[in-house]
Amino acid sequence: MRLFVALVTTFAASSALLLAQDEEPPPNFILIYCDDLGYGDVGCFGSEKHRTPRIDSLATEGMRLTSFYSTSGVCTPSRSSLMTGCYPRRVNMHQSAQGEWVLFPVARKGLNPGEITVAEVLRSRGYATACVGKWHLGDQPPFLPTRQGFQSYLGIPYSNDMGARQRKKNPPLPLMRDERVIDAPVKQDTLTKRYTDEAIRFITENRERPFFLYLPHTFPHLPLYASESFLGKSANGRYGDSVEEIDWSTGRILDKLTELKLDRRTVVMFASDNGAASRAGGSNAPLRGHKGSTWEGGMRVPCVVRWPGVVPAGVECDAVTSTIDVLPTFAAISGAQAPTDRVIDGKDISPLLRGDSGAVSPHGAFFYYFKDQLQAVRHGRWKLHLARTEKKKELPVRLYDLDRDIAESTDVAAAHPDVVARIQALAEGCRGDLGDRGLRGAHQRPAGIMEDPGQLTLLGR
Amino acid sequence: MRLFVALVTTFAASSALLLAQDEEPPPNFILIYCDDLGYGDVGCFGSEKHRTPRIDSLATEGMRLTSFYSTSGVCTPSRSSLMTGCYPRRVNMHQSAQGEWVLFPVARKGLNPGEITVAEVLRSRGYATACVGKWHLGDQPPFLPTRQGFQSYLGIPYSNDMGARQRKKNPPLPLMRDERVIDAPVKQDTLTKRYTDEAIRFITENRERPFFLYLPHTFPHLPLYASESFLGKSANGRYGDSVEEIDWSTGRILDKLTELKLDRRTVVMFASDNGAASRAGGSNAPLRGHKGSTWEGGMRVPCVVRWPGVVPAGVECDAVTSTIDVLPTFAAISGAQAPTDRVIDGKDISPLLRGDSGAVSPHGAFFYYFKDQLQAVRHGRWKLHLARTEKKKELPVRLYDLDRDIAESTDVAAAHPDVVARIQALAEGCRGDLGDRGLRGAHQRPAGIMEDPGQLTLLGR
Repeated sequence: MRLFVALVTTFAASSALLLAQDEEPPPNFILIYCDDLGYGDVGCFGSEKHRTPRIDSLATEGMRLTSFYSTSGVCTPSRSSLMTGCYPRRVNMHQSAQGEWVLFPVARKGLNPGEITVAEVLRSRGYATACVGKWHLGDQPPFLPTRQGFQSYLGIPYSNDMGARQRKKNPPLPLMRDERVIDAPVKQDTLTKRYTDEAIRFITENRERPFFLYLPHTFPHLPLYASESFLGKSANGRYGDSVEEIDWSTGRILDKLTELKLDRRTVVMFASDNGAASRAGGSNAPLRGHKGSTWEGGMRVPCVVRWPGVVPAGVECDAVTSTIDVLPTFAAISGAQAPTDRVIDGKDISPLLRGDSGAVSPHGAFFYYFKDQLQAVRHGRWKLHLARTEKKKELPVRLYDLDRDIAESTDVAAAHPDVVARIQALAEGCRGDLGDRGLRGAHQRPAGIMEDPGQLTLLGR
Repeated sequence: MRLFVALVTTFAASSALLLAQDEEPPPNFILIYCDDLGYGDVGCFGSEKHRTPRIDSLATEGMRLTSFYSTSGVCTPSRSSLMTGCYPRRVNMHQSAQGEWVLFPVARKGLNPGEITVAEVLRSRGYATACVGKWHLGDQPPFLPTRQGFQSYLGIPYSNDMGARQRKKNPPLPLMRDERVIDAPVKQDTLTKRYTDEAIRFITENRERPFFLYLPHTFPHLPLYASESFLGKSANGRYGDSVEEIDWSTGRILDKLTELKLDRRTVVMFASDNGAASRAGGSNAPLRGHKGSTWEGGMRVPCVVRWPGVVPAGVECDAVTSTIDVLPTFAAISGAQAPTDRVIDGKDISPLLRGDSGAVSPHGAFFYYFKDQLQAVRHGRWKLHLARTEKKKELPVRLYDLDRDIAESTDVAAAHPDVVARIQALAEGCRGDLGDRGLRGAHQRPAGIMEDPGQLTLLGR
């Protein structure tokens, strides 16, 4: 069910009015989201290879979330959660229409335009919204960011290894402004700089009103590029070069906030979409596993939040939090109404961000899916890998105590049958709700599908 | 983009208020929709085989629409138009996710819950709504009638030849109440009677308020059944038996309206979803072609509308009208707001229904699609079949003058090159908008897809 434009208009008008009458406008949000950046890839999370002083300053002036989870080891499902506050299976974005991990160019599938994104939630409070960077939730027109609450878009619609250079049948990697391709193939070494310029422009133009800037970087996803100023300058090859350019970009944004005196009025959040890939040069240390897996290294990502005067400075929060919490948390902070007509998996973690004494993780359990399969469950300090068959091998249940054993090295299932049983019951509940391999969940919602997808190309259609 | 429940509630409340303040409530709507009933299959459209006195009485007391079109020669796309007021390609319901003509059981695809159906439009005016019969717009829970504006549902979710008896891998043909299977396999000879009882119950319970009853019959789709009272009683085998039982059903409904003194407050519309199949016993006379084709026999269907005191009695209207017009027309008559945030292909034909002098078809052109392919265009009296390749045969453009040659027997393209050119330009515009084989349209919207469809079964999930 949807509402009609007449009503939307009324709603938007009254929201604007609300803002005008408020004594203080709600804060801006800037969400910097890297692609395949590992848990150990920035200084404030332990990297000794990469120089990331500006990202580290976010940690000094804000909070490190050390148990912050993406909902998937790969890009498309991860982003579907960030946008909707839901597990990927909830919104049927856990795999492509062909059963692949992520969407490929000219995909028939995309995030259902009927889903309510964090951008739409903030739009309802009168926020200016922009998406600058990699989208990857569908490349057909009805699936683009401009149809999901973003007033403007500059970026690539899917991963940077999906151009014609990688697969001949694919179109050249397109750079889009709103719904038009403005460059193809785009020169990838210019991307981080172009995104940053666009971000600065958007912040400057909207400095007088609440805004939401979603900045999903293209790197350090392979193939790796950096602009001339950064190429060959890091101690970790092109991987490090691209990370250090992202740090520079973050610095430019922070400097602009200072210049415009927006520091205290802006929540800056920095995170990644999943762990580093296994052979790209990244590090998930001290975690086990890589991008794509349900080991911690696949899904626990670095996350820092700065909001001077509200989020305490220089602190660490180890409570379980996730990208699904972004929508409800931003809604709560902004005073917007999160959707109430559907299940939202995320929770408002603003009490944790404020450092409220007694604030705990709102997640009784966190569920790790690999495509359509529920593979693991975190419950407090415990993580249970469920029994399953993989590559013709029978894997038994394995229990890890993440408080003592963050690297998932020692299976303690035999010593804690009660914990195993408790978590298996949680898994069973999740299966009924969200589904599992070969099993439909009771509360899944449909993705969108276009039977006649077309290529995004430079001229005309 | 969607609105939130808080707003929906407000809207619903204010609509109810509107109704309370109105001097006279808007009329009820009953839409009886047959499955595969041909143009020449009822008495008032020329059948001499079938006794259909009660359907014929609708024509005596109301209007026959003799150029009324379904948007497809088959079921799923046809119904997607009836519900949304749009061509099937607009809402990506022109074929299944596997490229088949219609949806099959455990279909991954369904009408996007984000689409606004005629039931949702009428709900916004406070109407009680029920769907009784065959749905066929998706069998997964998020696609069922109960998620598309119908407060209750009793019926089969897809065609009656899709049970386990026809294909072993399919579940037994389920009869559903709302979202639960209550009988499987359902005894098909009971269906028309059960539907009719349910319709009578709904009408009776809602006699004090505006209601919308959508009654999509299961027959005369194959396999053919009729209850004992009708079996073997017609002059046309089981086909005729099933049609005559539908006539009986229509009569019971009309009698109930009379009994409840609702005649003048109820718009009754009777139509079919496409032409009769080629070997089922039905008749599309005097039209050429059968179910599935873009000849008139595939898509022009019998249609009668009765609304005593408003629609003139015993008249015929030959203006081009279509199932896509149902949503805008019912919206206009009820005083509801049709969607304004998206393209709707249908038009308000209430001026034609009222018999307004000077009222003409609001359709400059009508487009005939076969799956994803634009095959023909009607423009006033003319119908152009576009050039195409079919079964390795090259078919040239062919032009028919339907006013003189309703059977499409004489190609007059050579004599009217100007008409051909004019219609080809209309076709070109349609292609850019809605697409054609191998060509995406600029204004298509996505269907819904569930990657993990499950069977609808009697017990539990």
